[in-house]
Amino acid sequence: MSITEGVAPDHGEPEHSEHSGDGQKPEQEASGGVRRRHLLFGGAAAGLGALAAAGIAAGTKPDAAGRKGQNTETGAAPSAGASDVVPFYGPRQAGIETPAQTHAVFLGLDLKPGLTRQRLAAWLRLLSEDAAALTQGRPALADTEPELAAGPARLTVTFGFGPALVALASPGLAPAWLRPLPAFGIDRLEPAYSGGDLLLQVCADDPLTVAHARRMLLKDSRSFATLRWTQTGFLRAARSNPAEETPRNLFGQLDGTANPRGGAFERVVWGGEGIEPWLKDGTSVVIRRIAMNLDTWDELDRRGREETVGRRLSDGAPLTGGTEHDEPDFSARNSLGFPVIAESAHMRRARPEDERQRIFRRPYNYDDAPVTGGAESGVSNSGQIFVSYQADVDRQFVPIQRRLDELDILNEWTTPVGSAVFAVPPGAREGSFVGAELFD
Amino acid sequence: MSITEGVAPDHGEPEHSEHSGDGQKPEQEASGGVRRRHLLFGGAAAGLGALAAAGIAAGTKPDAAGRKGQNTETGAAPSAGASDVVPFYGPRQAGIETPAQTHAVFLGLDLKPGLTRQRLAAWLRLLSEDAAALTQGRPALADTEPELAAGPARLTVTFGFGPALVALASPGLAPAWLRPLPAFGIDRLEPAYSGGDLLLQVCADDPLTVAHARRMLLKDSRSFATLRWTQTGFLRAARSNPAEETPRNLFGQLDGTANPRGGAFERVVWGGEGIEPWLKDGTSVVIRRIAMNLDTWDELDRRGREETVGRRLSDGAPLTGGTEHDEPDFSARNSLGFPVIAESAHMRRARPEDERQRIFRRPYNYDDAPVTGGAESGVSNSGQIFVSYQADVDRQFVPIQRRLDELDILNEWTTPVGSAVFAVPPGAREGSFVGAELFD
Repeated sequence: MSITEGVAPDHGEPEHSEHSGDGQKPEQEASGGVRRRHLLFGGAAAGLGALAAAGIAAGTKPDAAGRKGQNTETGAAPSAGASDVVPFYGPRQAGIETPAQTHAVFLGLDLKPGLTRQRLAAWLRLLSEDAAALTQGRPALADTEPELAAGPARLTVTFGFGPALVALASPGLAPAWLRPLPAFGIDRLEPAYSGGDLLLQVCADDPLTVAHARRMLLKDSRSFATLRWTQTGFLRAARSNPAEETPRNLFGQLDGTANPRGGAFERVVWGGEGIEPWLKDGTSVVIRRIAMNLDTWDELDRRGREETVGRRLSDGAPLTGGTEHDEPDFSARNSLGFPVIAESAHMRRARPEDERQRIFRRPYNYDDAPVTGGAESGVSNSGQIFVSYQADVDRQFVPIQRRLDELDILNEWTTPVGSAVFAVPPGAREGSFVGAELFD
Repeated sequence: MSITEGVAPDHGEPEHSEHSGDGQKPEQEASGGVRRRHLLFGGAAAGLGALAAAGIAAGTKPDAAGRKGQNTETGAAPSAGASDVVPFYGPRQAGIETPAQTHAVFLGLDLKPGLTRQRLAAWLRLLSEDAAALTQGRPALADTEPELAAGPARLTVTFGFGPALVALASPGLAPAWLRPLPAFGIDRLEPAYSGGDLLLQVCADDPLTVAHARRMLLKDSRSFATLRWTQTGFLRAARSNPAEETPRNLFGQLDGTANPRGGAFERVVWGGEGIEPWLKDGTSVVIRRIAMNLDTWDELDRRGREETVGRRLSDGAPLTGGTEHDEPDFSARNSLGFPVIAESAHMRRARPEDERQRIFRRPYNYDDAPVTGGAESGVSNSGQIFVSYQADVDRQFVPIQRRLDELDILNEWTTPVGSAVFAVPPGAREGSFVGAELFD
């Protein structure tokens, strides 16, 4: 399943910054203004009517990660009555340090054969403009259901580029780590959830917002690309358990305790030294689909489940005591002389040997339709869409995954079935588009 | 698609009643108390540990339908910091007049061959007890992820009985309408979404709550039944657009404007005269899966889309003017002499000829994974889980559906692909179970 651990969390106070929101009140068009054609029923109807959009209110709180970037947004608990807006344009893409929204869909697209560099740029511009509109609560360019664009519910659209896209846009500019991950012994990868030339990560607190954005972005893509895979995920709704800042996965574990914060977040995600110039203020994302066998997991007693990770289920504290964010004592032994946190425990295995081997995880649960009929009837099709951001996949992600592949008791109940790596370009300036650096 | 219309909405003020919530603070069990077994990794682990659950707060506002029944709950916008609880026990089942939650899953189960009447009662008791616990934010009996039960987010579990279940429990007691609907010309029904012996409608504002409840209820069912179908749906999240009380479907329409309210709701849903004694305070539910062809819908201009239903897309007002809940003027004609609301418009066709032909709709959107690869790549798999409650299917639902089958311009873009009818028994008294009336 998850890589829940990094090095000790950075407890430095995050720097808060106050930005004013970037939301705009779109013009309200009288519905009478769109009554330009009269449809005779039974006959054909054509064309797109003019569109009206409802007004929006911009969120203006500092982001939860406390970063200085452009991702000014509300925290995890938007107030009733406000349509919360995360800015789209800025030096870095939104949807990374943005506090995780309740719903996400990940789309993996393949370029159509013969797509030209010029057409690729046109597609990225179209996607960027529609993403910019939708995230601000405005309809997409050819939006036929403009009312569904109102109330963006912290919608973000984050772009990731696969090797073929970078090669077409700017041959030779792909970083060394932009390739499939090395094969791991635990992997049982399915092509249906692996690879892809373009990633679109669409997140919002409202499932209808995600559905509408997905549809608009896929319509934009029809002439340029084919859909390779879709993964739909969710977290606990923001307000259901405000006491828990770290989300829980379907194993019931608090998942993400050791994520870097503050200054560590900056280093882990955005890097700095050795980065390709076009990836300044960019990063990388690894998306792995991890099937979780809830049935065999349920055969384990509670203590066993806590020992798989080395943390308490109730509050995420290390088994050596304290609270969620306290340091574990790996040398502690119990009365029988066994380590309190086992050698094979996930938290011990995932912990990097080197401070530079850290990643920022932003995972989602998935829970597709259970098995119908037959002996397996009702068995769940559940797991985690593992999503990690890091400046360098080879330096940060791969060593952790190698250790987990060698030994991690959690592997007993989890199976990676999908895997993809993307370069995440910087954000777009207003008037430009995501990936423009590759077309200069 | 939808049956969006009934007779003129009843604008009588709903009767509000104040109940105190039924939530209970479960005992907090120290996590140390569950460390009863030590797991040696590599060996087998067995048994279920003792479980701890987080505390909950009970919602105490009147329900949005303003009814006097037991469904005391918070409105559509629960406040931050509260885990909102809908009572399970009471004269009528929850999840019907309960203001629609954001997420729903509908499970259609078939009794295992040879299941005895006694075993059926045991299953219903088990499901009732776990539904009672989970809806109140307490773990299910064999809950292995008790933390996921905290924060029930207005969870409701509503039971429906198919003909075979009633026949096994009490032969001869099935009402005449408890059978598959008559065949309609527009239907393209798939067995994968039709029929079933037991319906479980699981709704909550949190997708993780729904996932956990589904899993617990399906685990309860393994010895007794097989899963026949699953349908997962959603609405706009409660707070994203508080100005709109009526939800929007994926066609962008306000959907449910003419739902009965106040006294009309009571008559439509709970009936009275002629009801089987065991169904007093019960009702019926029709669940139809309606595929919506968003692609051809998009070829229609906005005016055409408005004329399919006879309402404005922006605010749901009839095309003859006014606001959402105003009466349409079916005699009005435009300057060309055509009716402003066409003869084939959905709202005109759906409107009952008879006040007794009304239904209460509680639908959800579905938006499953789009087509991957090939010429249809990216085409959506979307529609509506049509859910209607009415005291008598034959008297209330069938005449409306007959008229829509004969003529309804919306049929051009919608296709029913699933259909099921269930009797909805009354609620359970504490200590008893849903359906106990059939075992007296």
